[in-house]
Amino acid sequence: MQRSDQKRTFKLIPHQEALNRLTSSLSIKLSSEKVEISNAVGRVLAEYFVSKVNIPDRKRAVFDGYVVHPEDTQDASIKNPKTLDVVGNIFPGDEAIEISHRQAIFTATGGTVPEGDYALIKVEKTRRIGSKIEIRSSLISGENVALIGEDVKKGKMIFKAGHILRPQDAGLLVGIGISSVKVIKRPKVAIISIGDELVTIDENVPNKIVNNYALIISCLVTEFGGIPKIYDIIEDDIGKIKQGLSQALKEMDIVLTISGCSVGPKDLVPDAINLLGKPGLVFHGIKLSPGKVVGAGVINNKAIVMLPGHITSTFVGFYLFTVPILSKLSGLKIEKILPVLKARLSMDVKKKSLYYFLRVRLKKSEDGLTALPVSGGSGLLKILVESNGYSIVPAGKVLKKGDIIDVVLYTQKELAHIL
Amino acid sequence: MQRSDQKRTFKLIPHQEALNRLTSSLSIKLSSEKVEISNAVGRVLAEYFVSKVNIPDRKRAVFDGYVVHPEDTQDASIKNPKTLDVVGNIFPGDEAIEISHRQAIFTATGGTVPEGDYALIKVEKTRRIGSKIEIRSSLISGENVALIGEDVKKGKMIFKAGHILRPQDAGLLVGIGISSVKVIKRPKVAIISIGDELVTIDENVPNKIVNNYALIISCLVTEFGGIPKIYDIIEDDIGKIKQGLSQALKEMDIVLTISGCSVGPKDLVPDAINLLGKPGLVFHGIKLSPGKVVGAGVINNKAIVMLPGHITSTFVGFYLFTVPILSKLSGLKIEKILPVLKARLSMDVKKKSLYYFLRVRLKKSEDGLTALPVSGGSGLLKILVESNGYSIVPAGKVLKKGDIIDVVLYTQKELAHIL
Repeated sequence: MQRSDQKRTFKLIPHQEALNRLTSSLSIKLSSEKVEISNAVGRVLAEYFVSKVNIPDRKRAVFDGYVVHPEDTQDASIKNPKTLDVVGNIFPGDEAIEISHRQAIFTATGGTVPEGDYALIKVEKTRRIGSKIEIRSSLISGENVALIGEDVKKGKMIFKAGHILRPQDAGLLVGIGISSVKVIKRPKVAIISIGDELVTIDENVPNKIVNNYALIISCLVTEFGGIPKIYDIIEDDIGKIKQGLSQALKEMDIVLTISGCSVGPKDLVPDAINLLGKPGLVFHGIKLSPGKVVGAGVINNKAIVMLPGHITSTFVGFYLFTVPILSKLSGLKIEKILPVLKARLSMDVKKKSLYYFLRVRLKKSEDGLTALPVSGGSGLLKILVESNGYSIVPAGKVLKKGDIIDVVLYTQKELAHIL
Repeated sequence: MQRSDQKRTFKLIPHQEALNRLTSSLSIKLSSEKVEISNAVGRVLAEYFVSKVNIPDRKRAVFDGYVVHPEDTQDASIKNPKTLDVVGNIFPGDEAIEISHRQAIFTATGGTVPEGDYALIKVEKTRRIGSKIEIRSSLISGENVALIGEDVKKGKMIFKAGHILRPQDAGLLVGIGISSVKVIKRPKVAIISIGDELVTIDENVPNKIVNNYALIISCLVTEFGGIPKIYDIIEDDIGKIKQGLSQALKEMDIVLTISGCSVGPKDLVPDAINLLGKPGLVFHGIKLSPGKVVGAGVINNKAIVMLPGHITSTFVGFYLFTVPILSKLSGLKIEKILPVLKARLSMDVKKKSLYYFLRVRLKKSEDGLTALPVSGGSGLLKILVESNGYSIVPAGKVLKKGDIIDVVLYTQKELAHIL
């Protein structure tokens, strides 16, 4: 059945099964590195943290005010003000001073409050008369005093491994005395475009095509926490493709190829992968469109994902097969790096015979988000420029205007483009 | 009315008026710089782009197939197949070849299709017999042929100034021959913590407090597109504060102070700002809680925002006054950098006498997002670690369980923490 104009035919499989084949062919081992806390925001923790200290580690004033014995304020009222002697001032960083009954001590916000039965009355609730204050309301024990461990309790689990560190989290860790943390190493991702027709983005050759998809995928890899490297373009030559893949497999954690994986005479990447060893290709061809000719292989426990040369299909290969591997190599569930939002469809979507990669533009509305389908050929980059994310529509499914769908944003930063 | 224990009293103003005073005291001038397109993702365009070329610049095959004259397929059917001579192969990058009637030319996806009246039939819809193909269905002119300018039309406005460049956008620009772009310079932000009680995050001194809020704010500045610099801690000394501010104003575009702006005897930042020149403080004290003691000044057309020392109040000063200035200095509307999502309240929120900075944790639910209020003292960092964003509740407003509120995410990356 082999034809000169078609190198192969496909037995398409469901994309979920394809992903299973890929992930079950890999045995992911995570590696970690120590980084300074100031460089750790956005990184994935490779260790858990249990606080060894209490924050605060001593009682502190919540406001500027006077520390007093609460009994001294019993029954205080406008008609029955209580007068106390002010015996000093405490500022944050000063050591606490014990006071006797009928005494008060000015304590600035954050200042230490002595152990024992004290309360703090806000400055503005007192009248100051020389070295005395007048109190016109009663206080209960501990009022306006931050307790030891109120913010962080000694022994408390603060962050689990797998947590993505945010600015406030880094601040909390520093607060409990942590200055560097073990994080998962960022996966290194090779990006190799294949095709006689391609030139680098600095060249400008008539009737040649610039390798801009490699740039797009490279920037996406960065967004998803990987370290991308764009390799030299490889021409449609099976020996050169094999050699390029072999080199990239040595250097990187994942290899992405762009183009060269369809059915034509010059689509040689699948053959090159199978020449590199076992298991080689683990699937090629999925029941999802655009993107039917996506495939992937595994060599030396590393994934090679074949992204097709039509940009929407390139995206399908990237989002449905590369991002899951990236998330595993980052020690994360995929939901942690692929943002999903609910949105209401603005129009009907006709049923398709295969699963469908619907691209949508999102708009804010009174009660949430509206999803506007953006349609057009899978080779048109403008479709991806005009959309903010995608939704996978099951084969045979009819979607009606008003239906709520899950929209996967292209990146978290797409939020800035939804107005 | 001056008391020794209270340096000042406030006349609180609405936070919207406070922001107006700050922004109307500044005359923002944007500056730009040229960067390589590969470094431009995430940056704000300082120029617009109109395409000088068509993409594609010649007709192209949308699939692997045969280019034919559509008239030659007229009335073709299973019963009446048409046979054409295959006269060659065209791959992307090859020059187009004109064909005569009753001829066909194999053309791989992306291959050039000659000018004139042609169509492309997919490989799998043909039978190949030696050097001939058999066609069993008729084609219309232009079928499966990408037209000149179908992706990008010459003369079309592609991106306006102010657009934040995404990976796919960078790819499109490269596709039309753009290799570097003019972007708005990232604003430089000084972060200066003030307080005798503070020590750097590398120190560990009993009863002192590490300067972790500076780290948090610094990381947030980075998230919002600024270039932060943490300055040395300044003690509670008006001369030293004035000198520190003066130095930072020379070097940076915005100055943020942390702490030292409340009503206590050691709260000297407002005085220092007023000593630096005119207009000095433009507001101090807002009708919003936590965060009442936030203030800001303008010196030499640069903003100094006084962030209070309680972390939730620090956030109020950052989100309500710093981010708007950062967005203006970035040439952006604030909605472009501060992500807002609708969410359904999980419980009633009692009315407050001032505007209220409600912190919420978001959870995904069947029909969108649920907002769970996280309450606790404004000095507790854990509240911000446990929440994903905030909502401003107007004074006197009663919110009921089930009400839909606008939640501002702390950063776009908070999406990863909403599960």
